[in-house]
Amino acid sequence: MRCLHAGESHGPALVSVIEGFPAGVPLGEGDLDAELGRRLAGYGRGIRAQTIETDACRILAGLWKGRTLGSPLAVLIENRDFARRDGAPHPDWPAPRPGHADLPGRLRYGYDGFAPVAERASARSTAGVVAVGACAKALLRQLGIEVWSHTARVGDVAAAEVAPTLARLRRVRAGTPLRCLDRRAEALMVAAVDAAAAAGTTLGGVAEVVAFGVPAGLGTYVQPDRRLDARLAGALAGIPSVKAAEIGDGAAVAARDGRTAHDELFPDGRGGARRETNRAGGLEGGVTNGEPVRVRAYVKPISTQREGLRSVDVRTGKARRASWVRSDTCVVAAAGVVAEAVVAWELACELAAVLGDVPLPELKSRLRALRDRQEKP
Amino acid sequence: MRCLHAGESHGPALVSVIEGFPAGVPLGEGDLDAELGRRLAGYGRGIRAQTIETDACRILAGLWKGRTLGSPLAVLIENRDFARRDGAPHPDWPAPRPGHADLPGRLRYGYDGFAPVAERASARSTAGVVAVGACAKALLRQLGIEVWSHTARVGDVAAAEVAPTLARLRRVRAGTPLRCLDRRAEALMVAAVDAAAAAGTTLGGVAEVVAFGVPAGLGTYVQPDRRLDARLAGALAGIPSVKAAEIGDGAAVAARDGRTAHDELFPDGRGGARRETNRAGGLEGGVTNGEPVRVRAYVKPISTQREGLRSVDVRTGKARRASWVRSDTCVVAAAGVVAEAVVAWELACELAAVLGDVPLPELKSRLRALRDRQEKP
Amino acid sequence: MRCLHAGESHGPALVSVIEGFPAGVPLGEGDLDAELGRRLAGYGRGIRAQTIETDACRILAGLWKGRTLGSPLAVLIENRDFARRDGAPHPDWPAPRPGHADLPGRLRYGYDGFAPVAERASARSTAGVVAVGACAKALLRQLGIEVWSHTARVGDVAAAEVAPTLARLRRVRAGTPLRCLDRRAEALMVAAVDAAAAAGTTLGGVAEVVAFGVPAGLGTYVQPDRRLDARLAGALAGIPSVKAAEIGDGAAVAARDGRTAHDELFPDGRGGARRETNRAGGLEGGVTNGEPVRVRAYVKPISTQREGLRSVDVRTGKARRASWVRSDTCVVAAAGVVAEAVVAWELACELAAVLGDVPLPELKSRLRALRDRQEKP
Amino acid sequence: MRCLHAGESHGPALVSVIEGFPAGVPLGEGDLDAELGRRLAGYGRGIRAQTIETDACRILAGLWKGRTLGSPLAVLIENRDFARRDGAPHPDWPAPRPGHADLPGRLRYGYDGFAPVAERASARSTAGVVAVGACAKALLRQLGIEVWSHTARVGDVAAAEVAPTLARLRRVRAGTPLRCLDRRAEALMVAAVDAAAAAGTTLGGVAEVVAFGVPAGLGTYVQPDRRLDARLAGALAGIPSVKAAEIGDGAAVAARDGRTAHDELFPDGRGGARRETNRAGGLEGGVTNGEPVRVRAYVKPISTQREGLRSVDVRTGKARRASWVRSDTCVVAAAGVVAEAVVAWELACELAAVLGDVPLPELKSRLRALRDRQEKP
Repeated sequence: MRCLHAGESHGPALVSVIEGFPAGVPLGEGDLDAELGRRLAGYGRGIRAQTIETDACRILAGLWKGRTLGSPLAVLIENRDFARRDGAPHPDWPAPRPGHADLPGRLRYGYDGFAPVAERASARSTAGVVAVGACAKALLRQLGIEVWSHTARVGDVAAAEVAPTLARLRRVRAGTPLRCLDRRAEALMVAAVDAAAAAGTTLGGVAEVVAFGVPAGLGTYVQPDRRLDARLAGALAGIPSVKAAEIGDGAAVAARDGRTAHDELFPDGRGGARRETNRAGGLEGGVTNGEPVRVRAYVKPISTQREGLRSVDVRTGKARRASWVRSDTCVVAAAGVVAEAVVAWELACELAAVLGDVPLPELKSRLRALRDRQEKP
Repeated sequence: MRCLHAGESHGPALVSVIEGFPAGVPLGEGDLDAELGRRLAGYGRGIRAQTIETDACRILAGLWKGRTLGSPLAVLIENRDFARRDGAPHPDWPAPRPGHADLPGRLRYGYDGFAPVAERASARSTAGVVAVGACAKALLRQLGIEVWSHTARVGDVAAAEVAPTLARLRRVRAGTPLRCLDRRAEALMVAAVDAAAAAGTTLGGVAEVVAFGVPAGLGTYVQPDRRLDARLAGALAGIPSVKAAEIGDGAAVAARDGRTAHDELFPDGRGGARRETNRAGGLEGGVTNGEPVRVRAYVKPISTQREGLRSVDVRTGKARRASWVRSDTCVVAAAGVVAEAVVAWELACELAAVLGDVPLPELKSRLRALRDRQEKP
Repeated sequence: MRCLHAGESHGPALVSVIEGFPAGVPLGEGDLDAELGRRLAGYGRGIRAQTIETDACRILAGLWKGRTLGSPLAVLIENRDFARRDGAPHPDWPAPRPGHADLPGRLRYGYDGFAPVAERASARSTAGVVAVGACAKALLRQLGIEVWSHTARVGDVAAAEVAPTLARLRRVRAGTPLRCLDRRAEALMVAAVDAAAAAGTTLGGVAEVVAFGVPAGLGTYVQPDRRLDARLAGALAGIPSVKAAEIGDGAAVAARDGRTAHDELFPDGRGGARRETNRAGGLEGGVTNGEPVRVRAYVKPISTQREGLRSVDVRTGKARRASWVRSDTCVVAAAGVVAEAVVAWELACELAAVLGDVPLPELKSRLRALRDRQEKP
Repeated sequence: MRCLHAGESHGPALVSVIEGFPAGVPLGEGDLDAELGRRLAGYGRGIRAQTIETDACRILAGLWKGRTLGSPLAVLIENRDFARRDGAPHPDWPAPRPGHADLPGRLRYGYDGFAPVAERASARSTAGVVAVGACAKALLRQLGIEVWSHTARVGDVAAAEVAPTLARLRRVRAGTPLRCLDRRAEALMVAAVDAAAAAGTTLGGVAEVVAFGVPAGLGTYVQPDRRLDARLAGALAGIPSVKAAEIGDGAAVAARDGRTAHDELFPDGRGGARRETNRAGGLEGGVTNGEPVRVRAYVKPISTQREGLRSVDVRTGKARRASWVRSDTCVVAAAGVVAEAVVAWELACELAAVLGDVPLPELKSRLRALRDRQEKP
């Protein structure tokens, strides 16, 4: 499967095209809208997110009577305020915002100003990513796979280690302010967000994604760029504001010794083996091992501060605070939804590669045969 | 540029082919051998690494009178013990090693045993990666870019924060046991490795890679899969044993508030802007900003323990310790060399894409023009 | 550059996304509409082509104040009758049309009927290809390159060999019924189309594309899949109804002996060499040699016949004529416009690869330097 | 599957790496040597071809006890005269050979001379292509698919239209001077080659490749670059000296009217449909239809003439004949073997994509299920 995204933040629309998506998968615009809605929720999002961006998408191609055709899917998400602004481009600003692509992007593309950078570098573009992830989830659902996220940390408030079971993740997928599995920590997180907002600053954190029902044998070690851990880490780090990506207990494991860093195997009583831990996040040697795939994205606090970070007016070369625009205080919960989307996409791609380019009924029977074979001791 | 790697651990040779490498770059087998030698050094490597693997490579294609031709480079690294074993395949073992690809790899490829997995999933394959990285470094060197690594942590011994300047990194690139910038910590790291070896266990850690001289404007935010942070994180996570990848101060930044998480800009006195920090690791919005590119790989302790991790004999379904083979105690320093290689490769690819597919003299003049343009306020 | 197309023939719209298109290129929807209009013209097109398909496109992304941004371009071409039909899908038919994808497409995607195949396999999809080609042409124009086509044959009426100069091709690009350089032959071609229409049948033919101003050194022999002749032949054969692709005098040259098959070199009086022929179509060893790039597409007669080709009713297994829908008699002129588009796209991709991923002003100065270097004897 | 080729004509070796090749396929160096031998046979090949190039290859990776591992295959073909020449590079020449890459290649890569171009642009590189094709054939054979070629024309001597059945193609695959199905024409072809050799010139011609046992549903119309006709035409045109590529009766069909250009369908008596012709070459809408896949490559006469084509001495700017080196008179039969290889490779790639990335036993059972489904009316 291939995918290309397009769209400016204040242009007429975001557009994504997916190529190679299997035929016969039930899909509707409602599936995409639901995920787009989840992206906009989350305590700490600003006003723009929750008003202007009440997204509704249209699937313009690849769908026929509620099922995918196998031909490319085209998704369109209109920017509602484009019509209101009558297409007038966004005004520019003189001092690049540290932490944004403003300055390097202008050097990259030779623009006069910073607005053309921000138009595309904006996190607005992640709506397209989420829409594509929703298509991937629709396929995965048919194959018995679910992908959900939760918030593991906001600023320096960490959730207690609650096992991220499917039942728990389903429960928090929409209902709670930050989709945190630890209710007590979540209250502290909300308070931290409030405090940051009051102080005119922002908070980062950690979002964890878990995929259930993933068969063993996805990804491969035979070529570095086909390792599934490499793909997932790359996809996570490709989300705006994500500055680190972790597989399983990644960073923590690097500090342990080898006796407590791996997932030992025990007889499962049916001639096979089972694990009691999942430190590896379901990935050994870049290949899924049948455990839930579990990965984390480390999200930086977004850079727009009420007082403005120190910057330079590029017209005068003099110091000048970066300008403030209404903005979010904490996007970790939203980043979790985007992270779900990219994980779902990568898993769907890999699954499609292993199962082959055939319609859904055959994908299902091939997956069944694959799972059967893997059951054999 | 494209690259494919081949080769089994106990087969006749490792083979890598690089396609799209520019013409006119001075290159010799010595360049590759030097890097291969650095990969084998590092306190904590086992006997195999330092004896059997005294690698020497041959460049079989793409070279002409000491310069690259622009046609594909083919690199061959013989496995010296293949001839000794007269090609006999490696014997198999009954209990898959937790933390290795043994079990998922067998499910993936339908093998009878685990040896065929280990043949390719072995870290031995990183020799090819290092050889390719050496070619990339030869190109980067011509363009004024250097890529070096140092060991930031071994087990729970962290180096003090010493600014990783080019001068310091050059100094440790070969001479010290673990290429650590903090001599005091390095002594503790060596002691920790000794203790782990005595206890029959292994240690992980953190390797940091820094690239100097990288122009602004590499990578782009316009498409998720072209962000340079995504590419680098993916490449790092594609190294065996690496379980997390971090850009700049990644994980730490996720715990700070927005006022101390970014790199503010200050007038540079010549009409432009300068930074005093590099928390972003030289990447804003997935684009290089002219600061050194700085990334980290979190390495798990390798899984082979003297006593053997608990596992299952797949023939009987009964508990059985994973077998022990002579092995390394700590591979963090080696992982740092591999990490240099993949970072060099990604930077070279991106630079080749931005500068275009032309011979070295034109690459140089184009880069000069690019740097000149970027100097303008 | 990458490109993905989407869209069904009777769906809401065709959508194409272009990724990697350089920044700073002047572009407007009018550029695309003009090419879309040329695709619909041409003697022998049916009523649908000239009424329902009066295409107008919208550029939804990648454009800012009349210039490209460097971020992806998204092009939308609405299907005007979709609204009229209120989105109702196209009715199906029981007997697959020989020569169409009907039967193999249904096997491929497991559909119940043939309409879902025809929705995407329809030549309607070439509108998206032409729109993307128009973007490529806009870039090429800035770099001094023009791509035009003419009709070399319709059925068994061949045009006399008139040298396809830029001036002549510009003259026929819109004004004549079949864009043929030989007026006398064109009259016979028109008569042949009329006769075929009267007989209820269809005609194929040959379209030739010529690109002027292409610098030497595009494409390369170093890897089979990077030869420009391979790319062009593949792109031409990817146009619906095209069953053969030819570089220069291709097929004719295969019947000559080696003394009259190549383009000999003569002193140009300035220390360099010039050619007097262009049998190679501007490509030697898969690389442009500075002569116009000249390629041909062989177009089969479209399969829909008034009486219907013999087929089988898949419900009964009994013989049944393929059903007739209003259709074109001859699409060679249109195929020529599509062929221009794919040639323009391939040249733009290759040029972008050689010149590098930088904004238009730098592309221009790099190309100038490249042409200067090539002038040197 | 991916593949990269490397190697210079007078360098130490040709090297090819194949990535994504399925596990479990029986393969040996003998399979490759046999095809390499067929490439060197064929009436009209020169002395070099039949003496220096008696190729023997080594498979350095990806093989284990006679079966593929699923890890990358690396193939090495030594250039026997490299040792003899002690690695000394080939001497250069002052006048570029028209029809070769000499001149455009030098412009492309900025070399001082022409030898570095010829080193890689040489048809010698097709040995690597044939070796990779032999691997593809080994996979196809397991899946019931065979790919063979015959010579349809040499110069202006065309073979009579003999139906290219599998039995006939197997019979000529090695035994006859030009692998022509029409014995009478073959005698004339041999005479034409002799006459050309006597006259110091060369001959081109047409090679046809036919693949048997290909299931319906390979390739797709949903994206231009995934049409199998586009892939095949591109692959054929990527063979050195091939200047046109044709699907089925391609060029001839373009001159017919629509009533005799397609393959009508008839009841097969079992509820399905059958065809009596195969003008489409087994491809409708870019998708295989279950008939043999049949394609043609038009080969130009190679450019080296005894008297030398007219050229220019680039040191003086004066006229000078291109120099003569011992060479072939007619390479059509060899081009047919290379064409088999690229067709086998493309079919194997497409089959692997449709069947999925699993070991051979599962590929077989999936293909069986696919063929079963397609049998249903």
